[in-house]
Amino acid sequence: MRGKVGIVVVDYQLAFTEPRYPLGGAPLVMRGLENTARFLKVARAHNVPIATCFTAYKTERDMPHWKVAAVRDQFRLDHPSSALDPQIYDKDYDVVVCKFGPSIFFQTPVVPYFIKEGVETVIITGCNTSGCIRASTIDSFQWGFRTIVPEDCVGDIEEGPHRVNLHDVGRRYADVSNADNMIAYFKQSTTLKFQSARAHVGQVERGVQALKLFTVIQNVVVASLSLKAEQFKQQSHGALGARLR
Amino acid sequence: MRGKVGIVVVDYQLAFTEPRYPLGGAPLVMRGLENTARFLKVARAHNVPIATCFTAYKTERDMPHWKVAAVRDQFRLDHPSSALDPQIYDKDYDVVVCKFGPSIFFQTPVVPYFIKEGVETVIITGCNTSGCIRASTIDSFQWGFRTIVPEDCVGDIEEGPHRVNLHDVGRRYADVSNADNMIAYFKQSTTLKFQSARAHVGQVERGVQALKLFTVIQNVVVASLSLKAEQFKQQSHGALGARLR
Amino acid sequence: MRGKVGIVVVDYQLAFTEPRYPLGGAPLVMRGLENTARFLKVARAHNVPIATCFTAYKTERDMPHWKVAAVRDQFRLDHPSSALDPQIYDKDYDVVVCKFGPSIFFQTPVVPYFIKEGVETVIITGCNTSGCIRASTIDSFQWGFRTIVPEDCVGDIEEGPHRVNLHDVGRRYADVSNADNMIAYFKQSTTLKFQSARAHVGQVERGVQALKLFTVIQNVVVASLSLKAEQFKQQSHGALGARLR
Amino acid sequence: MRGKVGIVVVDYQLAFTEPRYPLGGAPLVMRGLENTARFLKVARAHNVPIATCFTAYKTERDMPHWKVAAVRDQFRLDHPSSALDPQIYDKDYDVVVCKFGPSIFFQTPVVPYFIKEGVETVIITGCNTSGCIRASTIDSFQWGFRTIVPEDCVGDIEEGPHRVNLHDVGRRYADVSNADNMIAYFKQSTTLKFQSARAHVGQVERGVQALKLFTVIQNVVVASLSLKAEQFKQQSHGALGARLR
Repeated sequence: MRGKVGIVVVDYQLAFTEPRYPLGGAPLVMRGLENTARFLKVARAHNVPIATCFTAYKTERDMPHWKVAAVRDQFRLDHPSSALDPQIYDKDYDVVVCKFGPSIFFQTPVVPYFIKEGVETVIITGCNTSGCIRASTIDSFQWGFRTIVPEDCVGDIEEGPHRVNLHDVGRRYADVSNADNMIAYFKQSTTLKFQSARAHVGQVERGVQALKLFTVIQNVVVASLSLKAEQFKQQSHGALGARLR
Repeated sequence: MRGKVGIVVVDYQLAFTEPRYPLGGAPLVMRGLENTARFLKVARAHNVPIATCFTAYKTERDMPHWKVAAVRDQFRLDHPSSALDPQIYDKDYDVVVCKFGPSIFFQTPVVPYFIKEGVETVIITGCNTSGCIRASTIDSFQWGFRTIVPEDCVGDIEEGPHRVNLHDVGRRYADVSNADNMIAYFKQSTTLKFQSARAHVGQVERGVQALKLFTVIQNVVVASLSLKAEQFKQQSHGALGARLR
Repeated sequence: MRGKVGIVVVDYQLAFTEPRYPLGGAPLVMRGLENTARFLKVARAHNVPIATCFTAYKTERDMPHWKVAAVRDQFRLDHPSSALDPQIYDKDYDVVVCKFGPSIFFQTPVVPYFIKEGVETVIITGCNTSGCIRASTIDSFQWGFRTIVPEDCVGDIEEGPHRVNLHDVGRRYADVSNADNMIAYFKQSTTLKFQSARAHVGQVERGVQALKLFTVIQNVVVASLSLKAEQFKQQSHGALGARLR
Repeated sequence: MRGKVGIVVVDYQLAFTEPRYPLGGAPLVMRGLENTARFLKVARAHNVPIATCFTAYKTERDMPHWKVAAVRDQFRLDHPSSALDPQIYDKDYDVVVCKFGPSIFFQTPVVPYFIKEGVETVIITGCNTSGCIRASTIDSFQWGFRTIVPEDCVGDIEEGPHRVNLHDVGRRYADVSNADNMIAYFKQSTTLKFQSARAHVGQVERGVQALKLFTVIQNVVVASLSLKAEQFKQQSHGALGARLR
């Protein structure tokens, strides 16, 4: 990873996670949902920006030329299957967008949100690997982010396209990893500690009781910067090592 | 105008149209609201695509670096002043987006919606002329649309910036007109009649009772195409005339 | 097809079409190049807008995080392999962009160019099917265009990913067709005749000898509109037929 | 300023800086050109990413609906007035884009380039204040960047619109400053020292003689991180101070 981290959660809406809907409840999707839920809990504790999306339209007039009949017929703003799955959605924390195309970045405010947060690395979760995950991964890459796809946080209705598409993006645009690696990184990362501390400074700047808190946080920041220097050296070693292998 | 027409309605939300809010109820804005309401009624009858927006955020974390204190403090998703003014909003017809920046086109699905509708000319309404109207007009122009700003359908808290910004866009990017001209064009336009007929055909394509209706509509289409040929000649004359003056 | 048509030609640069370069000369790519060259000749005769692109960077600093070593090392602005293949490039006709990401539409002026031309249907040609064609097809779809991929106008270094990716886009976003169908459509299409006539009117509007030419063109336009009415009926029949099957 | 810094240079092409062209040589533009040239020299020494643009088209067909006759007639790719002014352009350093609309960010790779560089603050230079600078400033703001406009690095053909537009953006989107402040900040900034050191690390990562250089640079990085911690405390004080005034 490089710099600050942001996470996107793509289309974990009931249409894909509830077996009663025509596209819902596929095993790989349910596995992705569980791992993502587990991962997001850790991420929120580190103050990592999370953007979640669902796909829905008012009428067939305002949607692109979808060839998938179930999308044309049921992905509507007022349909119950458009609700986000409660396992991955924290309404007090996550930023939510209703997307129009396959990519969560396509004509949504997710890129500017991540720019404002200083994000340089994006982690992709959600479904389906061969559709909206593929599209979101391409976009993350072409927007200039370093991109990671934890394989067990994304899912697909079919296993073949899941594998083939991870292979396509893994050789070109992104690093394919898994939930446990992400969680381990978050738990030990001093960059994330710094990210967290900085967010607190941000709140303080705007807050009323700024002065009292300030001295405390300052100490945290200085401490985390020292850690960061240490980690920077380690990362640089790591990067070189990867090149030399 | 050229080709099919689309209309955008920018930020006629209660924050600007209700005098009880700090930025609300300015005379030019209220004038713009009334003229826009009048104009949209005619537009809906001609099946013209309408995209309406408001500006609101979840927290200060997910908004750009606004310098306007009232925006930073009150433009929130859960604040009553973010609701659209009922005078310009038809929930059964208009497509609505929550925008992030000053421009209604910035990272929203309005451009793809207009592409799918075949729109070539965009009419801009809303507030404020020196802020979000200026930004939306620049974007409409740079997305390649022929752009019209009916002066009395847009408003500003102050008259000076209203005039100066209309002057800036009028000499570079857009034609400045007024509500009556727009309404007169819509009432006589055979392009719009064609647009309307085509929309019906679109519904028929997807509909259940397609075959019966089809013959009727076919006749309308053929008739409107003949009118269109007539109008095309007139428009071409008009265009030449404008050049020769 | 629907409405006016635009064509994109993706990355037929020497890096992919010359066998002396590491990624160059794959059989499917050479087949795609030949069919595209044949198709573009017909398209230019019908005044169809064509946008061609290549991928190149100044240094590794201004490129996204490519994992493909050959792209990182050789896709440079000053490298001879970045030149467009002369078989598909007409410098007096085509609009050319240097793209940054896999998609020809990503942060290039191709979408606004097509909006200004009134394009509603996009035909995708170029290479590689499992990389930049996949990305460009997703973008064409999510920008709201009706999208067609003529299978024998796109190519890939490997056949497996070529097939799998066409399958992925064909079931979701686009119609998969071939060069002969495209050429036959163009040769018989009165929409394209109209598109061509209108372009002439556009030139006339701006031209010096407008008045003399005008009467002649007017007759063409009226004639082509009658043809268009005829064709519209046929298309509508076709659309219904497709639904009823 | 916040985080890493990027600079855009808008339309300092001969059409605006050479008196022999219809829009060229206005006093405010020449003043802006000189200050920008002086500022960019310092910025390049600190390894700050610089994106420069000019506006030009192939034909009238592929440009937006410009109302400015001189733009329609002379802003062509093959016209000598489209060349960048040598005073502000370093071909070995700057990234250059040919833009389509008024904003340097509109459908160009400048945003992804800045994302990859981790830019959080953008400084805007160029011309004209009431046209392309206004548009670029709005875009910088809505893409989520903290935005600064040094007043004497931007210019306009007329002084009235120059002032009015700086006022419009200064109360909403950006901080208005000047060249001397920017230069002073760069000369004392340890963030920029860090940015510079990191770039060297980046080169090292890719380089051949990585290992030898590495130990040296590591020491620089650790030293600059200590400085950064110091500066962070100072900046935080500054930010609070600004709020309390």
